[in-house]
Amino acid sequence: MTLREEVERSGRIKILFFPYGKREWFKKGVCIFDAAKALGIDLSSLCGGKGTCGKCKVKIEKGMKGLNSLTEQELKHITEEEIEAGYRLACQTMPTTTVSVYVPERSRIGKQRLQTAGLEVLVEQLNPFVRKYPVKLPEPTLHDSRSDEDRLLDALNAKYNLPTELDLNFEVAVDLANKLRDADWTVTAVKWKNKIIDIEPSDTSDRCFGFAVDVGTTKLAGFLMDLNTGKVVAVAARMNPQIPLGEEVMSRISHQMLEGQKGVEELQAAVVSGINEMIEECCEKSNVKTSEIYEICCVGNTAMQLCFLGIYGRYVAFAPYPPVLRRGVDIRASSIGLVSHPRANAYYAPVIGGFVGADNVAVILATRMLDSDEICLALDIGTNTEIDLGNKDLVMVDSCASGPAFEGMQIKHGMRAATGAIERVSIDPETFEVNYRTIEEKPPVGLCGSALVDVPAELLKAGLIDLTGKFVSEMAKETDRLRRGLKGIPEFVLVPQPETATDTDITITQGDIRELQKAKAAMRTGAEILMKRLGEKRKETVTESDISKLFMAGAFGNYIDPENARTIGMYPELPLERVEFVGNIAGTGARMCLISKEEREYAEKIATTVKYHELAADEDFQKEYLDALFFPHKNLDRYPDTANLLRRLGRIK
Amino acid sequence: MTLREEVERSGRIKILFFPYGKREWFKKGVCIFDAAKALGIDLSSLCGGKGTCGKCKVKIEKGMKGLNSLTEQELKHITEEEIEAGYRLACQTMPTTTVSVYVPERSRIGKQRLQTAGLEVLVEQLNPFVRKYPVKLPEPTLHDSRSDEDRLLDALNAKYNLPTELDLNFEVAVDLANKLRDADWTVTAVKWKNKIIDIEPSDTSDRCFGFAVDVGTTKLAGFLMDLNTGKVVAVAARMNPQIPLGEEVMSRISHQMLEGQKGVEELQAAVVSGINEMIEECCEKSNVKTSEIYEICCVGNTAMQLCFLGIYGRYVAFAPYPPVLRRGVDIRASSIGLVSHPRANAYYAPVIGGFVGADNVAVILATRMLDSDEICLALDIGTNTEIDLGNKDLVMVDSCASGPAFEGMQIKHGMRAATGAIERVSIDPETFEVNYRTIEEKPPVGLCGSALVDVPAELLKAGLIDLTGKFVSEMAKETDRLRRGLKGIPEFVLVPQPETATDTDITITQGDIRELQKAKAAMRTGAEILMKRLGEKRKETVTESDISKLFMAGAFGNYIDPENARTIGMYPELPLERVEFVGNIAGTGARMCLISKEEREYAEKIATTVKYHELAADEDFQKEYLDALFFPHKNLDRYPDTANLLRRLGRIK
Repeated sequence: MTLREEVERSGRIKILFFPYGKREWFKKGVCIFDAAKALGIDLSSLCGGKGTCGKCKVKIEKGMKGLNSLTEQELKHITEEEIEAGYRLACQTMPTTTVSVYVPERSRIGKQRLQTAGLEVLVEQLNPFVRKYPVKLPEPTLHDSRSDEDRLLDALNAKYNLPTELDLNFEVAVDLANKLRDADWTVTAVKWKNKIIDIEPSDTSDRCFGFAVDVGTTKLAGFLMDLNTGKVVAVAARMNPQIPLGEEVMSRISHQMLEGQKGVEELQAAVVSGINEMIEECCEKSNVKTSEIYEICCVGNTAMQLCFLGIYGRYVAFAPYPPVLRRGVDIRASSIGLVSHPRANAYYAPVIGGFVGADNVAVILATRMLDSDEICLALDIGTNTEIDLGNKDLVMVDSCASGPAFEGMQIKHGMRAATGAIERVSIDPETFEVNYRTIEEKPPVGLCGSALVDVPAELLKAGLIDLTGKFVSEMAKETDRLRRGLKGIPEFVLVPQPETATDTDITITQGDIRELQKAKAAMRTGAEILMKRLGEKRKETVTESDISKLFMAGAFGNYIDPENARTIGMYPELPLERVEFVGNIAGTGARMCLISKEEREYAEKIATTVKYHELAADEDFQKEYLDALFFPHKNLDRYPDTANLLRRLGRIK
Repeated sequence: MTLREEVERSGRIKILFFPYGKREWFKKGVCIFDAAKALGIDLSSLCGGKGTCGKCKVKIEKGMKGLNSLTEQELKHITEEEIEAGYRLACQTMPTTTVSVYVPERSRIGKQRLQTAGLEVLVEQLNPFVRKYPVKLPEPTLHDSRSDEDRLLDALNAKYNLPTELDLNFEVAVDLANKLRDADWTVTAVKWKNKIIDIEPSDTSDRCFGFAVDVGTTKLAGFLMDLNTGKVVAVAARMNPQIPLGEEVMSRISHQMLEGQKGVEELQAAVVSGINEMIEECCEKSNVKTSEIYEICCVGNTAMQLCFLGIYGRYVAFAPYPPVLRRGVDIRASSIGLVSHPRANAYYAPVIGGFVGADNVAVILATRMLDSDEICLALDIGTNTEIDLGNKDLVMVDSCASGPAFEGMQIKHGMRAATGAIERVSIDPETFEVNYRTIEEKPPVGLCGSALVDVPAELLKAGLIDLTGKFVSEMAKETDRLRRGLKGIPEFVLVPQPETATDTDITITQGDIRELQKAKAAMRTGAEILMKRLGEKRKETVTESDISKLFMAGAFGNYIDPENARTIGMYPELPLERVEFVGNIAGTGARMCLISKEEREYAEKIATTVKYHELAADEDFQKEYLDALFFPHKNLDRYPDTANLLRRLGRIK
C-alpha cells in the first residue's frame, strides 16, 4: 500500500490545482469548489456554488474514477465535447480519491483591469474631520495644579481657540498623565469631530492621513489621502474578496440567509480584508504608517453597506426592500478589523433607499446634479444600475437589476476586464470580418463589458440581428460565422479557436444577446420611468431634449463606445456631446466626503433629499420594459438619429 | 507518614482560620495575610500588608514551630504579652507547616453599621437622561419603503416630537430589522441623552431604573432609583472591597504603583464587584432585573475616580497633586464589568482638584451652598476631610489628610462602627467612672468614630488631659484608670477587661490622643485657612459669626456629639443650632445627578466654579496647624463658650 493509499484509507485525499501548482489534503467527498476557495484559487462563480451559473467549470486531469456522477445541474451547463474532455462544475464535484484539477482561463476571476480614476475632487474648502494641533503645556506647580485634562484643553483653547468642551476619548484619558509627562509636555492632539482621539508625543502635525474606499459589489477601489493637502497619495484596487461567497448582491444576501451569523461575519471579514490589503499597499508605496490613517470613508450600495457593517440583510432582499439604516454611520474602524489608527473612525456614507446606496449619493455629490439648473441624467452601470434624473428642484433615483451581463457574467464567453479580454469589437457589414482589440493586446480569452456593448450594435448594423435581437437566419448564407451551436441555438463566431487563448471559438449566442437586451432594457426602463415621474412632479413633460447632460459612470465607464451604447438603446437618444464619462465617480465622492466636513454634510442632505422611486411598484414598468427590449427601442421615434443610421445601412425601411 | 505529612512534603500546607472554620491548601511559605485574602477573610489592614500598621494581628493556635521568626516590623507592634500568647502580624508570617490561625475580633473588618441615609433629594424637576418611548410603527409597503431607521425615528418624532437626528447605537442598529419585526412593529425606544440605546419589544415604559453610588474610600452606598418617579426603590451598603488592597487612598495608589497595571485592575475589579453586589441585592429586594438599570451615577473622591475608571493615579499622589480628569466621565458600564443593561452609561461626576472629588461636588450640590446668600461651611469628614466655605459669590474648598483616626484606624482600640463598637462615652469628672453605649448593645470590642470625639472632650472636661492633650500625671492619684501602659506610656482605661468582648482592657493611650489631635487639627486648619483666603477674595474678614450654617457630613455624621466635637475644636466655634448633620450627603448628590439633567449640568458647573485651594501650598498652614493642635485651640478667644465651660469646670483659669 502506497503512502497515498494509506492516507486515503484514513479518509483524506489530496487535491492539486493547476496551473497554480497548489495542493492540499482534504476530507474525502469535499466539494472541489470549497477546496479551491480554501486555497484561495480565484475560481469564478456567479451563484456562489449552487450549480446554477455554470461558471466554475474545471477540467479533471487525474482521478476521474473517484468522482460522483454528473449532476442534473451540470448537464445544463456542460456540452458533450466538454464532458468528453473531462470538464465538471467544481461546485458539483466531490472526489473520493486524489485528483488533479485544471482551472481553465475562462473560469478564473483573473487579474483585472480595475478602474480607480474618476472626476477630480471638487471641494470648495479642505476641511477634514480629523485635525492635528501641536501644543506645549505649562508644567503643573503648586500654584497651578489644574488637572491634566484641563491643562490640555486650556492650552488648545488658548492657541487654537478650540472649545474647552472638547470630548476626550476615554482610552486616551486613561493614559493621559503618562502621555503628557513622557512627551515632556509637548504633544500633538489629534481631533476627530469634537473629540480628542489621541495625544501624540512632540509635533506630528505634518502626518495626517485618511483612506477613501469605493466598496463595489465586484471591485474595491481605495485612495490614501493626505488630509493636510486633500491630495491623493496612493491608489489601490482589488476584486471584492466577497465574490467567492456570491457574485452579486442577491447571492451574498442569500449567503447570509443560508449561513446565518457565520455568513454575515464571513462577508464582513472578506470585504475588510480587501480594504486592509489596499491600505497596506498604499501605505507601503508612500511610506505612511497605517496608524497615521485617522479616518476611513466608504461608499457602496445598500447591500455592501449591510455586509460592511455586519448587518443581516434579509429584509432588503424582499419587497418592499426597506434598508435597515439610511443615515451615514460612524463606527470605530478597528471594531470591524480595519487596519488604521486604533481609534480611527470609519464612516459609511448614507444610503437613499432600496439598493440605492452611498455610491449613488457619491455620484450625485460629485456630479453636482442637485445644484444644477438644468436637468441631468446619471447612469451608474453595474450589476445593479442606478439612474438619477433631475436638477436643483428635485432629483429622483431608481435602481434596476440590470444583472451582471455587462460585467461579462451570464454571457457564454463573457469575462471581466482582465488581460486578454476583448474590449472593442467592430464587424464589417459587408465581409462580416471581425476586428477586435484585447486588453494588453494578449490573445483573446473572452469578452468584457465594453465589447458586449459593441457586439449587439455591430451585429445590428451588419444586419445579422434584427430589431428584436433575433439572429437573421438567412444571413448564414452570407457568412460561416453565423452558425447553429449547441442544441441548434444560433451563435456568431467572433474569434475562431486558432486565434484564441482558449481551446474554443469565442462566440456570441442568441442567449447572450437576450441577456444583453434584458440588461439594457432594464436600464432604459429605469430612465424612462424617471422621465415620466419627474415630469409629473414638475408638472411638465420631461423629454430627451430637456436632458442637458448624461453622466455615464461605472466600471467600464471610460471604455464604452457612446454611440454603440446609444445604438442598442442603453440610454435615451441624446446628442453624443452631452454624454460625459465620469468613470469611478463613487470613489470621487468618497474622497470628497473624507476631506470635507461640508461635503459630508451635503452627502447626508442628498440622502434625505433625493427621492427614491421603487420601480417594482411602478405600474408602467412592465410595458416600458417590453418596449425597451427592442434595439434600440420599440418606438423608433424616440431614436431618430439611430433610426436614420439603420435606415442608411438598409436595415430598416 | 500521615497524609498531611505527605502533602506537606510535596510543598503544600493547610491553613485553618478561626472562628470562620475556613481552611484551604496553600503553597509552603505563603503569607498568612495573602491566604486570608484568598479565602475572603475580613482581616483588617491599614497598610495593605506592608507590616507598618500592625492591624492584622492574629493568634497562631497550632503550628507555631513551622513559622519564620518575628520580624522587626512585628516587634514594633506586638507586646511581650501578645508574643507569649502566640500573636503575630499576618502579613509578616509565612508558615511552612499546617497552621491554625485565630483572627481576634479587633483584627476583623467586621460587619459595620453603614450609613446610607442623607438629605432628601432636592430636585426641581425629575428629568433623567434615560427615557422610554413606546411607539407603534406602520409596516413597510411598496409605497412606503423607508428604511427601518427612518421608520422608527419618524414615528418617535410624530408621537413625541423627538428630533429625527437622534443617534442610534450601532449594536441596536445591527439588530434593528429583527427587533422591529419580532415585536410586530410595537416597540419601546430607550433613549439616553440623544442616543437610542435599545429597542425593546412591546411597551416597557413603566420599567426604567437607575443606580446611584457613593464610592467612599471605606464604604460604598448604593441606591436603586425608579427613573419614572425619582424615588428610591432600594438601598444597599458595603465595605469598599478595595480595603484589603490598602485602607486609605494613599496606600491604594501605592498598590497601583507597586503592582503596576495589575494593581490598577485589581482596585477597579474590587470596587466594581462591591457595586455589583449592591446592585444585585437591590434588584433582588425589589424585583427589578439588572438589565432594567439603564444608567449608573457615581460620586467619590479623586482617588476613587481613578480606581473606578482604571486610571493609574501616580501623579495625583505627589505635589502638586494634579488630577488626571476633572470633568464628569461617561463610560459604558459593562466595559468595566458593572452589572446593568448592556448599554447602560456609567457617569462618574466631576472632581474639583487635588483629592477633592465628585463626592464633594455632590455635597455642594445637595447643600445648595453655591445658591446661598449667606456663607456656609461644610465638613465632609473621612480619611480625607473636605472643607467647603462660601456662598453664591464664591465657594472655596480644601482638603486635609485628617487620617483615618476618626474611622478608628491608628487608634489602639479603634474600630469601625460595627456591632460592639463603643459609640458614645461620658466620663464623670468627679468619680472618673465611664459610661458608654455600644452598637446593638453588645459587649464592647473597641471605639468607633463618634466615641473618639467624645473621649478627648470628656477627658478634657474631667481634667485628665490638659489643653495640649497631655495626660495630667498627678491625676493618677485620683483614679486607677489613668495608668502607665506599654513602655510606660500613659493611658486611660475606658472599659476594663472583664466587661469587654476581647481579652484585654479597652484603653485610650497618649498616642491615640495625639492621633486624634492631629486629625482634628488638620480639619480645623482647613477651615481656618479657608476663612482667611475667602476673606481676602471677598475683601472683608470672614469670622465665625459670618458663618450662618455648618453642614457636617460623612460616615459618622449623624452619630457625633456636636458639642463634644466643638469642645475639642474640630470646627470653629459656632452656636450649636447652626450645625446641621446631613449624613451621607454625597449619596444624596449622586441621586440628584442620576434623576435630573439640570442637576448633573449644575454638578459640572460646580466643579468648574468652586475654587480649590491647595493647603500644601499655603504659607500659613504650619502655624495654623500648630495652633489648632491644642484643645480646643491655642487661641481661646476663638472658643469663648468652650473656654467658659472649661473655666466653670476649673480646668483653666
